[in-house]
Amino acid sequence: MAWTMTAGDVENVARGAAVLGTGGGGDPYIGALLATRALQEHGEIPVVTLEELPEDALVLTVAMMGAPTVMVEKLPSLEEVIAPVRELGAYLSRPVTHIACAEIGGVNSTIPVAAAAALGLPLLDADGMGRAFPELQMVLPTLYGVTASPLAFGDEKGNVGVLQTVDNSWTERIARVACVEMGCSVMISGFRMTGSQARESLVEGSLSRCIAIGKEIVRARAAKSDPVAAAVELLGGRELFAGKVADVQRATTRGFARGQARIDGQDAVLMLSFQNEHLVAESDGRILATTPDLIIVLEHETGEPITTEGLRYGQRVRVVAAPSDERWHTSAALAMVGPGYFGYDHPSYRFDGSVEDLAEAIA
Amino acid sequence: MAWTMTAGDVENVARGAAVLGTGGGGDPYIGALLATRALQEHGEIPVVTLEELPEDALVLTVAMMGAPTVMVEKLPSLEEVIAPVRELGAYLSRPVTHIACAEIGGVNSTIPVAAAAALGLPLLDADGMGRAFPELQMVLPTLYGVTASPLAFGDEKGNVGVLQTVDNSWTERIARVACVEMGCSVMISGFRMTGSQARESLVEGSLSRCIAIGKEIVRARAAKSDPVAAAVELLGGRELFAGKVADVQRATTRGFARGQARIDGQDAVLMLSFQNEHLVAESDGRILATTPDLIIVLEHETGEPITTEGLRYGQRVRVVAAPSDERWHTSAALAMVGPGYFGYDHPSYRFDGSVEDLAEAIA
Repeated sequence: MAWTMTAGDVENVARGAAVLGTGGGGDPYIGALLATRALQEHGEIPVVTLEELPEDALVLTVAMMGAPTVMVEKLPSLEEVIAPVRELGAYLSRPVTHIACAEIGGVNSTIPVAAAAALGLPLLDADGMGRAFPELQMVLPTLYGVTASPLAFGDEKGNVGVLQTVDNSWTERIARVACVEMGCSVMISGFRMTGSQARESLVEGSLSRCIAIGKEIVRARAAKSDPVAAAVELLGGRELFAGKVADVQRATTRGFARGQARIDGQDAVLMLSFQNEHLVAESDGRILATTPDLIIVLEHETGEPITTEGLRYGQRVRVVAAPSDERWHTSAALAMVGPGYFGYDHPSYRFDGSVEDLAEAIA
Repeated sequence: MAWTMTAGDVENVARGAAVLGTGGGGDPYIGALLATRALQEHGEIPVVTLEELPEDALVLTVAMMGAPTVMVEKLPSLEEVIAPVRELGAYLSRPVTHIACAEIGGVNSTIPVAAAAALGLPLLDADGMGRAFPELQMVLPTLYGVTASPLAFGDEKGNVGVLQTVDNSWTERIARVACVEMGCSVMISGFRMTGSQARESLVEGSLSRCIAIGKEIVRARAAKSDPVAAAVELLGGRELFAGKVADVQRATTRGFARGQARIDGQDAVLMLSFQNEHLVAESDGRILATTPDLIIVLEHETGEPITTEGLRYGQRVRVVAAPSDERWHTSAALAMVGPGYFGYDHPSYRFDGSVEDLAEAIA
């Protein structure tokens, strides 16, 4: 059923999204600032379920593309957020009817809130991943034949562009180099969908889930119980490791924040590898969790999510694994977002201990 | 007065354009192949003078963007040539009325012929430079406030894009990185002009001039007189040097063919520096000619133009300088295409011996 998102919801959307964002999707504080201001200025927005979406809807996703390390320093204006949607609406010569999140992440679940408010459009309680992934084509709609293009992109200077590409990987390639040239962070809008395309391909109820997770962390903290344990239960996940951040290596290369973090535990060491998002957690040569499952870093006491660009030496953290949307474990999906795609040679373990051999899955 | 271009004109257009292209603008053989086929398939095209252009015209330039070293291996199809024009026509929601050359160069004076034929549109007897330059914003229309964007670009795979940027340098920056990602060579269309904008900013009579130069080289050769001397006279230029190509250093970096060529003469050495086009000719530490004036390499006996990517060890060549359009020597133009822009610290000599100090000119 449709519900209304108010400025009071934003903090929990951002917190929950940063949890599900597995370290990526941008800094929740920045996204929350922007969405709160937009809701205050333009009023609350209706959030509609996939079921309620009319067949003749024209849904567009709105997102910030770039390296989170840069995004934290480039808070977009509302004008910048909606410019690609306007550009695409003009290009399509049809009015956009609904806004959707491409992914769930600190910025990329709140930017669409800001866009919907500023454009006076309803927002879908859904997203394209149920988590965050670093590349543009890595959304479930790609697996259902939804084209990323026409895709519009724009920067804070006022440069905009529209791409019409032969597949979603080419949209990623061209938009990525443009993004890097434009300062490593741009606003994008694309993945045009009808009602049935959205119903078939999106992850249902993502924003409600974010709010539930965000609220639960706050509730547990207030109740002096363990917020990490509370989050783990809601996520259907498992706590993998607890320790202190001992080393972070990070470089912003080819438009991504890539790196590794070492976490020293009581009698073991955990290594996290990331490309915007956490991709692999391993200890003692053993893979504890790997993409496409969710690897989440939470602050030890407060349960607050820590993004990959927010990892700092000395932080006391707990690392949690949670299952991704089931559809990410199909062979076509694993070819797009599995460990092999990112250059890791281990099979696609599930964090619950079952193993899916990626090579086998693709063959 | 309007005239008609037939398949029989193409060879001389290409030859003359490769002379004025100062080593850049692509291989004349490739461009001629494409234009000849287009004229044979679609019939001859009307070529109109700037004077005849109606005020309500919608002129678009058509060009190939990229490194000539790559362009020689990627002959575009007619479909590929016209795709960006069609894309831009749809974007502007107004019919395109005339095609113009952005620059004069082996490929970039014949590609517009092919485009005009395939689209059934008249071609302007004019271009944006009167020569070739490596970057997209380096056209006289930029100096008259004509915007490069909306600019459409497309590749052989079927990917297309439209850019709307804040200035022409940003069009260059974003289109260049997209071009590199798309394989270092794309077709582009942009620089939308009205009749009076075209009249004010373009170089008049460029295609007629190409044909005249091309014909004169052939005539002189047939008459057993010196084709280089004949070309020099038509160009109002001067022969700078004669010798043998002794060394060519060339690299295709960041979307350009950059390098240096050493030419050994009887008792001196000439160094040519290029970025797609020849930019500087120097001997014994003395600048003989420099951008924006034209530096042209012709085959010693036949007078055939040699492009920068066609320079080979052992070729016997003669190097000619010729004056550029007068407007390239204004201070605003020198800031855009003078030696300083390309990283050379010498002032903007004119090949006739007069010196314009670039720093002074800009100040």
